[in-house]
Amino acid sequence: MSISLALIGIGHIGGSMAYGLRAAGTAHAIYGYDADADALKLARDMDIIDAACETPEAAIQNAELIVLATPPNTIAEICRQLEPHITPAQTVTDVGSVKGPVLDSIAQACGHVPAWFVPGHPIAGTEKSGAQHASGGLFRNRYAVLTPADGTDPAKIEQVRWMWEQLGARLEQMSAAQHDALFAGVSHLPHVLAYALMNVLAQELPTTDLKRYAAGGLLDFTRIASSNPDLWTDICHANRDQLMPMLEQYRHHIQNLLETMRDERTEPLHKAFASAKRIRDELNDPAP
Amino acid sequence: MSISLALIGIGHIGGSMAYGLRAAGTAHAIYGYDADADALKLARDMDIIDAACETPEAAIQNAELIVLATPPNTIAEICRQLEPHITPAQTVTDVGSVKGPVLDSIAQACGHVPAWFVPGHPIAGTEKSGAQHASGGLFRNRYAVLTPADGTDPAKIEQVRWMWEQLGARLEQMSAAQHDALFAGVSHLPHVLAYALMNVLAQELPTTDLKRYAAGGLLDFTRIASSNPDLWTDICHANRDQLMPMLEQYRHHIQNLLETMRDERTEPLHKAFASAKRIRDELNDPAP
Repeated sequence: MSISLALIGIGHIGGSMAYGLRAAGTAHAIYGYDADADALKLARDMDIIDAACETPEAAIQNAELIVLATPPNTIAEICRQLEPHITPAQTVTDVGSVKGPVLDSIAQACGHVPAWFVPGHPIAGTEKSGAQHASGGLFRNRYAVLTPADGTDPAKIEQVRWMWEQLGARLEQMSAAQHDALFAGVSHLPHVLAYALMNVLAQELPTTDLKRYAAGGLLDFTRIASSNPDLWTDICHANRDQLMPMLEQYRHHIQNLLETMRDERTEPLHKAFASAKRIRDELNDPAP
Repeated sequence: MSISLALIGIGHIGGSMAYGLRAAGTAHAIYGYDADADALKLARDMDIIDAACETPEAAIQNAELIVLATPPNTIAEICRQLEPHITPAQTVTDVGSVKGPVLDSIAQACGHVPAWFVPGHPIAGTEKSGAQHASGGLFRNRYAVLTPADGTDPAKIEQVRWMWEQLGARLEQMSAAQHDALFAGVSHLPHVLAYALMNVLAQELPTTDLKRYAAGGLLDFTRIASSNPDLWTDICHANRDQLMPMLEQYRHHIQNLLETMRDERTEPLHKAFASAKRIRDELNDPAP
């Protein structure tokens, strides 16, 4: 089976989806739109899309499946704009890292969450952004999480599942609330902490020393601090209700460590480090 | 030129030095001692050392260069124990991540910092520990930092420099105080933060979810949380005077981010993320 695809937003994720779906023989025509004219031109030059369209409405006109690969804070407005043009045969999905607040904003913009919208999130981003880093294999063996609302059309969910399977992803389904709590922890919190470490180190040490003596541990730790600040401001702001309590727990944990060190107590320090190592070592085992 | 070597403590670092020096044709005889009998046997079985000795004194008897590859909190006692046996031709160096407090503890244990002791620190550790992970190429193109005291014998410094050059390392020299402030930032702080993140996530989320959804960012971020908790308790405790102010700065930065998020101000969040990205991107450039 092969479908026609509209790609709204052609960055690292969107571009990788297009490459992957074409390689799988799943998409025979890919219509693209990006608010950034340069990004749109690049996508056409790189053969990510077959046709560069001047508006989202034009891009979706002949597409069965519509992928909104734009930041979370843009999804509601795009849905509102497209809603009058969506036909019963069409399916719309997104790829954002925040789900509940996006569904809320769609409900506000459209008066309801349309049955044609299937909220999705592939767990496959990297610190890179832009279609120039697109790779068709990006989603292979990675999870793609769908968080349908009560009224989401089951047939549309099936179509989005099918698309991700073509890309080699492993499908999971959960509530938007469960998703947002989970990714506040495993993704959003680490990003905030990595950004924070870079800023603190730059404030405390000369950049030349940082560049010279940053060993593997620091470079790996802070790799995600190279992530797109626009996107991550958006994600952290949108998911703040889930993220803030985790960040507060973290602050509290650091506070405790500081007190332990101030009191020169090594036992609680050792206990914390040992339990952390135990947990981290477990993450190296293959996922169940 | 080829020398005889004594290796006191045969873990990841010590084992890698032995392999590398032998491969370079630099060490013709390697005498080893480890307080852990199993580690000593392993080192002999892996041909890391030529002779397994029952005491540090026996190990150093025929060695020109003596490497103390044991944790920081053991160095002073080993120096005190060895001092009566060290001959004028012998040189002793260490490999620990903390320098000032170790020199202080040696001064306390021996009544002075002996001229034969050259404090050293190769910037090449990984989260792995134990000689089973030893690799002769571990130090190639990595920095080795020496932090001689006022009374350190210049000829001994030269010998230790020569040894690191044989291992392919790039030599740097600085004061112990400068070293400890620098590595509190680029190494000790990230370790504490990675350990802390693992503990907070384990407290907030089910382990099965952590294992399933930990994407590349989180795994890279927390890789160093697999580091040896005994060693890192020792390092963080020994260097607490430098580490605590940095950790306090970090706590303060997190506090500010929390307040920004609480007030729903996205501009300071974006500014912080953007400056962090700018700094992190710079670290990808080749070191000067």
